[in-house]
Amino acid sequence: MSNEEYDVVIIGAGISGLSSARYILSKDPHLNIVILEASDRVGGRTLTVPLKTENGTDDWDLGAHWIGRSQTHIMELLEELGIETHQQYVTGKKYLQVGKDNSVRSYTSDIPTLSLLGLLDLDRIMKKIDSLAKEIDQQNPTNHRRGHELDSITMETYLNQNMWMSESKELMEVAIRGVIGVELSQVSILYFLTYVSAAGGLKNLVESTPYTAQEYTLKGGCHQISIKMAKELGESRIKYNEPVVSISQNKNIATVKCESGNIYQCKKVILAIPPNQIAKLKIEPRLPVVKRELYKHMPMANYAKVLLTYKKVYWRESGCSGEVVTNGGPSSNTKCKYGPLCLVFDDTSANGNPALVAFVAGQQLVEWRQLEANERKESVLKCLSQFFGDDVYKYIDYAEKDWEEEPYVGGAPVCCVAPGAMKYYASGLREPDGCIHLAGTESASIWTGYMSGAVQAGTRAAIQVLLDLRPQTVSAQDLKNNNKPFINPSK
Amino acid sequence: MSNEEYDVVIIGAGISGLSSARYILSKDPHLNIVILEASDRVGGRTLTVPLKTENGTDDWDLGAHWIGRSQTHIMELLEELGIETHQQYVTGKKYLQVGKDNSVRSYTSDIPTLSLLGLLDLDRIMKKIDSLAKEIDQQNPTNHRRGHELDSITMETYLNQNMWMSESKELMEVAIRGVIGVELSQVSILYFLTYVSAAGGLKNLVESTPYTAQEYTLKGGCHQISIKMAKELGESRIKYNEPVVSISQNKNIATVKCESGNIYQCKKVILAIPPNQIAKLKIEPRLPVVKRELYKHMPMANYAKVLLTYKKVYWRESGCSGEVVTNGGPSSNTKCKYGPLCLVFDDTSANGNPALVAFVAGQQLVEWRQLEANERKESVLKCLSQFFGDDVYKYIDYAEKDWEEEPYVGGAPVCCVAPGAMKYYASGLREPDGCIHLAGTESASIWTGYMSGAVQAGTRAAIQVLLDLRPQTVSAQDLKNNNKPFINPSK
Repeated sequence: MSNEEYDVVIIGAGISGLSSARYILSKDPHLNIVILEASDRVGGRTLTVPLKTENGTDDWDLGAHWIGRSQTHIMELLEELGIETHQQYVTGKKYLQVGKDNSVRSYTSDIPTLSLLGLLDLDRIMKKIDSLAKEIDQQNPTNHRRGHELDSITMETYLNQNMWMSESKELMEVAIRGVIGVELSQVSILYFLTYVSAAGGLKNLVESTPYTAQEYTLKGGCHQISIKMAKELGESRIKYNEPVVSISQNKNIATVKCESGNIYQCKKVILAIPPNQIAKLKIEPRLPVVKRELYKHMPMANYAKVLLTYKKVYWRESGCSGEVVTNGGPSSNTKCKYGPLCLVFDDTSANGNPALVAFVAGQQLVEWRQLEANERKESVLKCLSQFFGDDVYKYIDYAEKDWEEEPYVGGAPVCCVAPGAMKYYASGLREPDGCIHLAGTESASIWTGYMSGAVQAGTRAAIQVLLDLRPQTVSAQDLKNNNKPFINPSK
Repeated sequence: MSNEEYDVVIIGAGISGLSSARYILSKDPHLNIVILEASDRVGGRTLTVPLKTENGTDDWDLGAHWIGRSQTHIMELLEELGIETHQQYVTGKKYLQVGKDNSVRSYTSDIPTLSLLGLLDLDRIMKKIDSLAKEIDQQNPTNHRRGHELDSITMETYLNQNMWMSESKELMEVAIRGVIGVELSQVSILYFLTYVSAAGGLKNLVESTPYTAQEYTLKGGCHQISIKMAKELGESRIKYNEPVVSISQNKNIATVKCESGNIYQCKKVILAIPPNQIAKLKIEPRLPVVKRELYKHMPMANYAKVLLTYKKVYWRESGCSGEVVTNGGPSSNTKCKYGPLCLVFDDTSANGNPALVAFVAGQQLVEWRQLEANERKESVLKCLSQFFGDDVYKYIDYAEKDWEEEPYVGGAPVCCVAPGAMKYYASGLREPDGCIHLAGTESASIWTGYMSGAVQAGTRAAIQVLLDLRPQTVSAQDLKNNNKPFINPSK
C-alpha cells in the first residue's frame, strides 16, 4: 500500500481524463499528475479490436465510432495525434423499417421513404426540436421560457403531443434509441433539447452527411486516441486496475483512497468518469446537494454494438449503402418483442476490409441481453437478413460489445437525465466542489455524449484546475477555444 | 476478520429485515440467522428521539410515523409486540394554502376549501386515479390495458391532461409531495397508480380518517417496533456497523463480504435494504437484467421531518386541528422559491405533551437542505406562523431529520420509479435470484412504502426462503395471510 503526493489526481483514463492531463501538462509540464484507471486499459467508452478478415485481421471499433468536422475539439486532437479519418460510406440505397406491418422500404436521398404526410410530420417535428434547441442555454437549460414544462414531460409525451403520424413518430423513436440509447419514455424532452443544442442541431446527430456526427470513422479505430495520449503522457503516469473507493477533501488537500489500499494525496482531483460511477464513490464532505440530486436522476443508457466482417461488400454490389434505420422488425426469438437492431451502417475499414456495424439499444438491448450468446447472434443475423438477404450469414468474424457489462462504465453512450432533474444540470455537472473538478463527456457543453465532448469537458476541467494552480498559464484565448462555436458551412 | 457460516444472512435491520428473521425463526427456531446492519442501530427508516417537554422529555418519531387499521400486517405485529396505538388528533379547523396568491383558507370537514369547480375537479381526478388503480395488477403493472402509455407519462403530464383548475392541481401536487416525497415531474403515473393500488385507494394515502394511513401514531414511537423485535430475536444475532460490500453466490452457497473484512457464508441472503442501496453492492454473478435496469430508474425520494414541542396545545385552543396542507407559501429565505413545508399535523404525544410535526419534501427539501441550520429553523417557523401565529416561536424543543443524510438509506419514504421502467417493477423487486431474496418496503405488494409494507415484504421473503430450506413449515394459510385483502369497513 503506497501513499503518494501529486498536484493533480485524474480519475478515469478515457479520452476526457487523458485530455485533461494533456492540457494541464501542455501548460506546465512540471505539474505532477497521476491518472487512476479502474480497468486494465485506457480508452473508457472506446475500444478497438482486431477481427478476422479474408486475408488476416483488421481493426474495428466496438465503442465510440464516428467523428465529424463540426466536432472541432476532437478534430484538433486528431490532427495533433496524427490520426487520419476515413469517410463513412453512404452511397446507394438505404433501408427504412417502421410501421405496424414492419415493411422494409428503400430510399436513396437523405429523406426516408415515408408517406407525404409522414414526411411533413417529420420535417415539422425536426424543425420544432431544432428551433427549441436553439433557445437552450447550456449553462442553465431550465431558464428557458418553457423550461419547467419541458422538463416535466417525457420525450414520448412531447412527440405524442406534436406529431400526427405513427410511422414518422416511430422513426423518431428509432433515431433517439440509436442516438442516446434510451426509450422515449425514459428521458426528459428538455434533456434531449439540451443534447441537440450541444450538437448544433438534430441533423448533426442523426445524419452521416458532411460535418455531422457520422461523417468519418478513424483509420485504425478510436481506441488509439487514448493509447496515443497515454504514450505521450508516459505510461508511468497511469495506474491501472486502481479503482477508487473514496475521496476526502480538507481545505486545499484531497485524499483519494483506492480499493487496493493505495492512497493518493493531491491539490486537485478531476473526476473524468460518468455520473453513475461518481455516485458510487464515498466523498467527504459530500458533494453539493444539486450534484447528488442530479446523479440520482441520471441513469446510464443501454447501447451495444455488433460487428460483422465479410469477404465481399455484397450490399454495395446490389446498390445498397449498408445503412438501415429499423424498429428491428418482428423478432425471431420469442423472448424478445422486436428484432434487436435499430441502426446498421457499412463499416468497411480504411484498408478495404468489408464489414457491417449494427446497433442494439434501449429496451431492445435489455431484452437481447437476456438471450444466450448463440440466440443473440442468430437474432442479429435474422434481422440483418431482412435487408441484405442470406449473404449476411456468410460473415467471417462476429463481435459484440454490450457496454452495460463494463463494471466501471455501466452502459453507453451517456448517462441521460430523466424528467424533473434538469434544474440541477449545468451546475451539477460542471461546477467544481472545492478541490474536486468534473470532466467526462456528460459534462460537456459542446457535443455532449461524444468523443468531442469528452475532449471539451476534459479541457474545461483542466482550465479550471490551472486557473487555481497556475493562473498565469491560462489566456483569454484558451477560454474562448474551449467554447468554440460550431463550424458547419453546409448550413 | 471473521469467517462465519449461517443458514440465512439478512442485510438490513429495519422493520422488513427483522420481520423476515422473526418469521423464519417462528417456523424453525433452529435455523441459524445473522442480521448485518450497516449503521449502529436497528430501525431503518424509523427513528424515535427524546425531545424536551415542559416537565422533562418525551419521545417523538423523526422517521415513519403513522399506521392505520387497514394496514393489517403492521397491526398484527404491533399486537404481538404489545405496542399500543394513539389516535391522530383531527378535530377542528384545518388550513389549506394553495394558489397563486398563497392565501390561507380554513375548513373543518375532510373536504378542502376550494372553489366549486376546484372541488369537482379534485373529486373527479381522485375517482379517476382510484378507478385506474383498482385495475392495476401488482404482479405486473404494465399489463394494464394502458400500461405502456401510463408509464410513459409523468404524474405532472397526467394531471395537466386530466385536471381543469390550477388550485386543485396544486393541491394534488402538495399531496403527492407529502405522500411520496417527489415532484410530479419525476415519477411515472403508472408507478403512482401502483402505489395507490397497494394502499387500497388514494384516500387511504392522504387522509387521517379511520382505517387510513394517518389514523394512529404509536405510544412510545415507531422505533420500538424494531427494538422489540431485535430484543426478541436476541441482540447477538445482529451485527452493527457492518456494511456489506459484496455478495457472491455459487450454487447453493452465498458469500457476503463486509467493509470490515468479515465474511459470512450462508444458504440464503435476504436483502432488506432499499433498491438504491442494493445498486451499490457488488454482486457476483450480477443480479438479473431486469433488476439492474429497474434500480437504475429508482431514485430515492426527498423527505424530512421537523418536530416542535410546546407547553400548550395552543392551536387546539383556537379551534384548530393542527392540520395544514400547504404549498409552503412565499419563502422567507431568498435562496428558496417556496416556504419549506407541505404538511403539518398535531403530534401531541400519548402522554399529552403538545407537539407539531411538519414535513419538508421534494424540491422544497432540496432547496431547504442547502440552508444553514438557523436558516432552516427560521424558515420552518415563519411558514408555520402563517397558520398558527406567533405562538409557533414559543417552542420548547426543535428537531429535524433529513433522511437523505443517512449514508445507508439516502432518503425517504421510498425509492420511486421514474417513467419508462415499470415493466421491470414486480419481477425486479420481488423475484429471488438464486440464493438472494428481496425484502424492504419497496418490494411490498400491499402498502408499499409503509411500515406495513415492510412487514409484508419481509414476511414474503421469509416464506420464499422457508419454501426452499424448510418447505414443510409453510402452509397455504401462510401464503394467504401474506396477501391479506384490505380491511376497510368505512367503504
